[in-house]
This record gives sequence, structure tokens and C-alpha cells, in this order.
Amino acid sequence: MCNAHVAQTVRERINNEGLPSVSRRSFLKMGSILTAGAALAPQVTRADMPERSLVDLTHAFTTDFPVFPGGPQAERETLVTVEENGYYIQRRNFAEHTGTHMDFPGHFIADGLRTDTYPVEMLMGPAVVIDISARAEDDADTMVTVDDLKSWEMENGEIPEGAFVMMYSGWEHLIGTQAFLGDDSGLHFPGFSGEASQWLVEERSIHGIGVDTLSIDHGPSATFDTHFIILGAGLLGIENVANLSAIMDSQATIICGIPRYEEGSGGPARILALAGM
Amino acid sequence: MCNAHVAQTVRERINNEGLPSVSRRSFLKMGSILTAGAALAPQVTRADMPERSLVDLTHAFTTDFPVFPGGPQAERETLVTVEENGYYIQRRNFAEHTGTHMDFPGHFIADGLRTDTYPVEMLMGPAVVIDISARAEDDADTMVTVDDLKSWEMENGEIPEGAFVMMYSGWEHLIGTQAFLGDDSGLHFPGFSGEASQWLVEERSIHGIGVDTLSIDHGPSATFDTHFIILGAGLLGIENVANLSAIMDSQATIICGIPRYEEGSGGPARILALAGM
Repeated sequence: MCNAHVAQTVRERINNEGLPSVSRRSFLKMGSILTAGAALAPQVTRADMPERSLVDLTHAFTTDFPVFPGGPQAERETLVTVEENGYYIQRRNFAEHTGTHMDFPGHFIADGLRTDTYPVEMLMGPAVVIDISARAEDDADTMVTVDDLKSWEMENGEIPEGAFVMMYSGWEHLIGTQAFLGDDSGLHFPGFSGEASQWLVEERSIHGIGVDTLSIDHGPSATFDTHFIILGAGLLGIENVANLSAIMDSQATIICGIPRYEEGSGGPARILALAGM
Repeated sequence: MCNAHVAQTVRERINNEGLPSVSRRSFLKMGSILTAGAALAPQVTRADMPERSLVDLTHAFTTDFPVFPGGPQAERETLVTVEENGYYIQRRNFAEHTGTHMDFPGHFIADGLRTDTYPVEMLMGPAVVIDISARAEDDADTMVTVDDLKSWEMENGEIPEGAFVMMYSGWEHLIGTQAFLGDDSGLHFPGFSGEASQWLVEERSIHGIGVDTLSIDHGPSATFDTHFIILGAGLLGIENVANLSAIMDSQATIICGIPRYEEGSGGPARILALAGM
């Protein structure tokens, strides 16, 4: 909806008639939606499917969300407003690897699949959350190891077919501080070790890995082993994932809601977890 | 992943060592993924969940996808490439209502909820597909009517709580032709009638509506009744939806994978259907 005719029509309509009549029931419903929005509950169960709920694993895609040093911050611009034009639209401008986003094989591999042609069934799979938050408190450079994966399996059984293996380091609580990226000595944040990535690729049959930090490789990495191994195997990476502690102790299915960016190396996405399945 | 250090490291690594070793099993797996991607099968069943599958209802987000007249085409620019820099990233630049995208209440309503604060549980709901494709073949301006909704209910039972009611007009087959938008006399494509929208808002309890055309109002609309009624009720619109015929005769759940665009009026999204639930 974006042309002069629309703007004029909408403006006239609001001036002359006000909003069209909407039933009292609808406005009451809207009230309850606004209330729910204000509470920002991460997990709400629908009355008609009590055993399932959507959990949001996605940060708001803001212009001040931290990016890899040297990369551009996301930008946005208001094109039209309800007050001036009768409807509201923004223009957005960003590099693909910003905010809660995905890495596709083509990000590192010349002939790797890109966002628009990647098979859709790979975008869903069981969530496996590896909690290294206690270790990360003392060591910003810590990594998910093969032992961490084996420990998870001792407690939960084998990592299931098609899984998204997610690192929870607790790092999201540092967003807005310098420590999210590191310190004056360089980048410091947790990630997957190359050995753990290799083990997942060789010994299990996963769809991808995810982290609550800026990169699937840890901050000090100079060789980007995990990027090469995961993307080189045709699998997916998810970075800056939010709210993983909410699904740590429950069965959940990850769903990667990424627009089909033309020839995309990846890009901003809505990462959701369907809890209870 | 976007700075000069990364580029240099990755370039050196490829030059000196080639790709890190990935097991034969992984490369075989990658082969099967590439094959699956080439086939672009809209619906693939995972071996371990035979009763469920993801169906992609999303067009590729291309720079030549038709937009509302007067609106800007989406743009993209390659920032770095695997060949030159060791990794590949694009910059994207677009107005929010482009491609397969969503309308949030704030698009038309001054204090309406926007993309970043809208309650996540509203992004999922049962699919209801209203097929008006036979009528649309003869009448580009046709609309989903209250009678269409009641006819659907006669065959399928009451529109379920939280549904996304989707219009299938067959219009996606016109993408790339002038007829997708209309003709020299103006905009002509199907949409929802204001009466049908009002009935859904007052008589049922839906999460939103969707269309396989450019707008939830039909082309000739001068008053945008459906936008005002649906968004005014705090509900969601989805435009340029693809592939709805694939879920017309089966039970499916719509999942709206929209990035949490800061103060977004809506924006490009991955619209998915979970068939079999």
C-alpha cells in the first residue's frame, strides 16, 4: 500500500468518517491483545491447543543491535505516517548478518545454497539446548565441546535427527554493554568448537546449530572452523538467538522464519520454538 | 561476520589449506540437500515425523517482485564475495510492504501494535483456505464474500479459533505479467470484501487474513475497508502469499515467520504451513 492515491483516500476517509465501525467485541479483543503485547509474555498457551505454545527466540531487529566490528549498523527511515499520509511504512536498509539472523551455506561456500533455494523442510527440527552458562561466567572464550554434547546425550538420549543444536551461554544479558563483543584486547564471546561441529556433522544428522552470541565460532577464532564445517556440510547457523533458557527443560521444535531473500547469504529471521512438540 | 580481519583470515585459509576436512558422509548429505533444493519440492515429509511437513507459502523476495504502483522496488547490493573476500554478504534495502509480507495494525492505525511488540502467539493459527479461483478467472475484481465464508463452514465446520483465513484466487500465476496488477483502466485483482472482513471480526475469533494478491482489499477499492476493519481490530494481514493450493484440502497450521522489525508496520516474512496439524 504505497501511492499518492491511497494516501489521499485514507486521509479523506479518516477526516470525513473516522474509523469504520468495529464491533464492541472486537475492540474488547483488541484490548486483550494490547494487554498481552504490553506484558510481552514469551510463552502463551492457546486455549484450543493447550499442549502447544509458541516461544519467541528472536531479539527486536533494532538499529542499535550490536554487529560484528566493521560491519554496518542496520538503518531505517519513516516513509509515510498515519498522521500525515493515512498509513505508515518504513524503509529498511541492512547487511544480511544483523540481529537475530541465519547463516546459509553460500555465506562461506562459493557454490553453497542460498536463502531463496534452500529446502524448506530443513527450516524445522527438534531443539537441543546445550547450557554452558555457568562456565561462560568465568570464561568469555569458552566453547561447546564434544564432551558437552555427550553429556547432554547421557541425560537426554541421542541428539535427534534434524536437530538444531543451540548453545545457551547467557550472553544475551550483555547486549548493550561492551562485554557482549569482548574488551580492548579483542573479541571475546562463547561459540562452538571446531571439534564439536565436526562431531555433529560426522556422527549425528542435524539441520543446524545456533548461538546466543554474535557468531557460531567463539570470539577469538582466527580460522572460523565452525563456519567452514557447518556451512561446508550444507547446514545452517543461527546467531544472536534470544530466550533459549525458556525451552531448556522442555521438548520443543525450532522453526526458522527467514524471508526468502534473493540469493541471500542468510539474513534476519524470526526464530520460533513450538514448545510441546 | 563482516570485517577486514575476517576477510583476510578466510582468504588465507582457503589459499593455504583449502576447505577443512568434512566427512564423506557429510558431503553425501550435502549432495542430497542440493538435489532436494534443485527439485524445489514444496512439501517434503521428514522420516521421523511422517504425519507432519512444512509447506512454503512464500515467494522468493526478489528485486523485480511487483509492488503497489508508486512504491519503490526492493534493492540489493553485494558487499563482499567468497571469491574476493572469503565470505559473501549482501546489503538489502526495501519498503516494508514488499514481496510476501505482513500488515500489522500500526500500518493503518496510529496507536496500533507494530511488528516488534505484537504478541508472538498470534503468529500461529489454523489455516482456512477460501477458493475463489473459478470466479476470479472471469472477474478480476471479485471478492471473498460472507456467503463464501458460510459455504466453507457448511463443508468444513465453523472457522476455528485463531484461524488465518486465506483467499486463494490463483493470482500468483499472473506474477510477471501486467495482469497481476490490473490493466490500463487501473488496479484489478481479488481481495476480501469489507462485509466479509466485518463478519470475521464480529462473528468469529481469527488471528488474521491472507491473500495471494497485492492487497487484502481488492484492486478497485477506494476506501480500504478490509485494511481498516482487520487492522483496526488488532488483527493481521498477509499479502502475496504463495502456494495456497497445496494446503487447500488438508489440515494445516499457518506460522508467520516475520523478523521483529523495530517499530515495523509489517514487512517481508516467511509464511509457512505445518501440514498435518
